[in-house]
Amino acid sequence: MQKPSIPKGTRDFSPEEMAKRNYIFNTISEVFRLYGFQQIETPAMENLSTLMGKYGEEGDKLLFKILNSGDCLSGITDEELIARNPVRFAAKACEKGLRYDLTVPFARYVVQHRNEISFPFKRYQIQPVWRADRPQKGRYREFYQCDGDVVGSDSLMNEVELIQIMDEVFHRFGIRVCIKMNNRKILTGIAEVIGAADKIVDITVAIDKLDKIGLENVNEELRSKGLSEEAIERLRPIILLQGSNQEKLVTLKKVLADSEVGLKGVSELEFILERISHTPIRAELEVDLTLARGLNYYTGAIFEVKALDVQIGSITGGGRYDNLTGVFGMEGVSGVGFSFGADRIFDVLNQLNLYPEDSLKTTQLLFVNFGQREETYLLPLLAQVRKAGIRTELYPEPAKMKKQMGYADAKRIPFVAIVGENEIAAGKINLKNMLTGEQTLLSLEELIERFA
Amino acid sequence: MQKPSIPKGTRDFSPEEMAKRNYIFNTISEVFRLYGFQQIETPAMENLSTLMGKYGEEGDKLLFKILNSGDCLSGITDEELIARNPVRFAAKACEKGLRYDLTVPFARYVVQHRNEISFPFKRYQIQPVWRADRPQKGRYREFYQCDGDVVGSDSLMNEVELIQIMDEVFHRFGIRVCIKMNNRKILTGIAEVIGAADKIVDITVAIDKLDKIGLENVNEELRSKGLSEEAIERLRPIILLQGSNQEKLVTLKKVLADSEVGLKGVSELEFILERISHTPIRAELEVDLTLARGLNYYTGAIFEVKALDVQIGSITGGGRYDNLTGVFGMEGVSGVGFSFGADRIFDVLNQLNLYPEDSLKTTQLLFVNFGQREETYLLPLLAQVRKAGIRTELYPEPAKMKKQMGYADAKRIPFVAIVGENEIAAGKINLKNMLTGEQTLLSLEELIERFA
Repeated sequence: MQKPSIPKGTRDFSPEEMAKRNYIFNTISEVFRLYGFQQIETPAMENLSTLMGKYGEEGDKLLFKILNSGDCLSGITDEELIARNPVRFAAKACEKGLRYDLTVPFARYVVQHRNEISFPFKRYQIQPVWRADRPQKGRYREFYQCDGDVVGSDSLMNEVELIQIMDEVFHRFGIRVCIKMNNRKILTGIAEVIGAADKIVDITVAIDKLDKIGLENVNEELRSKGLSEEAIERLRPIILLQGSNQEKLVTLKKVLADSEVGLKGVSELEFILERISHTPIRAELEVDLTLARGLNYYTGAIFEVKALDVQIGSITGGGRYDNLTGVFGMEGVSGVGFSFGADRIFDVLNQLNLYPEDSLKTTQLLFVNFGQREETYLLPLLAQVRKAGIRTELYPEPAKMKKQMGYADAKRIPFVAIVGENEIAAGKINLKNMLTGEQTLLSLEELIERFA
Repeated sequence: MQKPSIPKGTRDFSPEEMAKRNYIFNTISEVFRLYGFQQIETPAMENLSTLMGKYGEEGDKLLFKILNSGDCLSGITDEELIARNPVRFAAKACEKGLRYDLTVPFARYVVQHRNEISFPFKRYQIQPVWRADRPQKGRYREFYQCDGDVVGSDSLMNEVELIQIMDEVFHRFGIRVCIKMNNRKILTGIAEVIGAADKIVDITVAIDKLDKIGLENVNEELRSKGLSEEAIERLRPIILLQGSNQEKLVTLKKVLADSEVGLKGVSELEFILERISHTPIRAELEVDLTLARGLNYYTGAIFEVKALDVQIGSITGGGRYDNLTGVFGMEGVSGVGFSFGADRIFDVLNQLNLYPEDSLKTTQLLFVNFGQREETYLLPLLAQVRKAGIRTELYPEPAKMKKQMGYADAKRIPFVAIVGENEIAAGKINLKNMLTGEQTLLSLEELIERFA
């Protein structure tokens, strides 16, 4: 018989991995709740009519589709079958698909439950998503997303709050980060003033290369993308943009003096930086014009978080959007949101070994099982130890001492309690520290005290 | 445009429902961990080769199958397509399916990770499962299961521990329950002594009807099922089995005197009841021979938990099995486990209104937003309030007071802080109790104290 396996790109999570993941998700949840965010969950399966067309043509191909139950082939003609068009076939044989992200289901949720929701709606959601991507290192076909959004409010105070949340989360993790900020309106303004509205992406890509290839080569690249000499000249102060956030904003205001939308973007950034200066922020904050994520989607602020001590892509990102739910017929729902990259945070915490010891501890105390008489003696005692909140096991059978100790070792249980004939006679518990080997004779009260 | 919807049999969970569900799952998790159980997770998608044939023919039909990505029709001939056999078609077009329960994935996990696991392995798992059942009231196509198992130990102390866990969980919920117990070996013994080994189910069904239809009608039914008069006569003390657990066991020992396996079952029950008597149990414990769940699967103890104050089916159930992983080629892995019925527990807690108030609270304190100046003033103050762990919001914009208060009401925020010009001048916070309307002028320290 073949050893069973799981589909490629999916994972089992072992007890240790689960402890780590629970630590991550619990920390994020706690901070979200501290700021008044509420959790929702949506079903794994959505109607394909909800999902299709929302992620581009490529995205449609990456949706996992669920075969209709019952007679999946009814309603398909022989001709259609033999035509062997997989896309058209799936459209007839599948009504449902697995969610691809948490944004579209959230938009669907907002529209469907609009009458129950009190806006501004601050929601967070931590659930797996599925993508039929080619699996590769660090890319999975099932992975968790961890999204927070505020919808139904245009106030930039929401952006301020999201920055506070990112800062607090990474502070709690002990990960030093830089929160990079940009604004879609600034990018639009730049394109406007150089007369190349369609070149935003080329420009940000070029700016990003300055450190590596130098100004001359950047300009060469821009030329090759069709930018005029005049445009390249105007771009120069933006490509060479340096200094503090304040200095950058001053330069930008000069360059964007003729662009209303550009100046709007600068003033939004200014507002956010001013407000955030009134609260204790541990992260670095950096205005970074190369941030161009979600360009087709974001309309205002754009965020990205980079870990300072680990070479890894962005570990969190987000931004403001104008129209979350228009595609479902509900106009005017703007919002701002972001997504923690759970898998990458997991990797960073692993690399820097930042998990608090306590978050990985499972059982704190194992009672050795010496046999029938001791079992009976220990049961009421165990009840008291557990009542004190101490995570405790009694080995389920009187196996050899070596086996029981091996179990404690494998499970990294830090203390073992030995209660044999002598200890019963003395009314004591022999507590062994598995790390030091030290043994101490304690009363039940003293034992509980030890773990308090 | 059509209002978007979700597939039938699936659910969205609103913030309030999530708070309740989190309370349920957190409580169960905490108790599992208190007993040294470790959490695992497995992927939503399993290979169909793992799932098929494990749930009977009916079960196979209820599996949600995922269409292969890419060209799902390749490898299927035109003849096969036109044959229109949905089962054979799915076998070729689908490699993966959504998990149907947590038991088969767990068995697969144990086999796949046998070298990393230290036995006895105490695992719990809380994840959704999917079944293409006809949706109806209280039956969903996506629902959470919540399983705990100990594998790799034959000791009955595991059964004792599972009873303790059930008792502790329902005690924490405040749900009064009866834990019903049976043993597969007793049922086998009964069938043996009456010479009708294939009639176990008929017998338990008939016994179950005693209260409703009386002994004569029960016997009539047994006759109609083909039981001999002699067998019916021998069954009489079992059908009329009454009294305390001790009395039932005494009767059973007499009736089963000639059945080795039957006596073994009685002594297992006796052992469990004796051991459990040494620990404080709040639940009622009842030996109940009509418990016949999982007859094809369970080989020893059988458990079921009934709520005493609500008319609802069993809210938890489980038992001991001999061979978890044989189907995957790993023999000799016995264990005992059970499953909390999360949806039914949710219903019971709702009906009895047993959610602790604190578990449903989200934001504790909302600061009214009066405008720019107040925002700036409040930001450092908010940081301190949150540092004290108080879940706090600042309304994101200076909307009308009525709107902001309406938001607090809708979100059931119990306290609102009003800090306008006067309060800033006085260095105070005006705290309004939303329930009583009472307002108090407090310093920041006093405010934090209030929520401690």
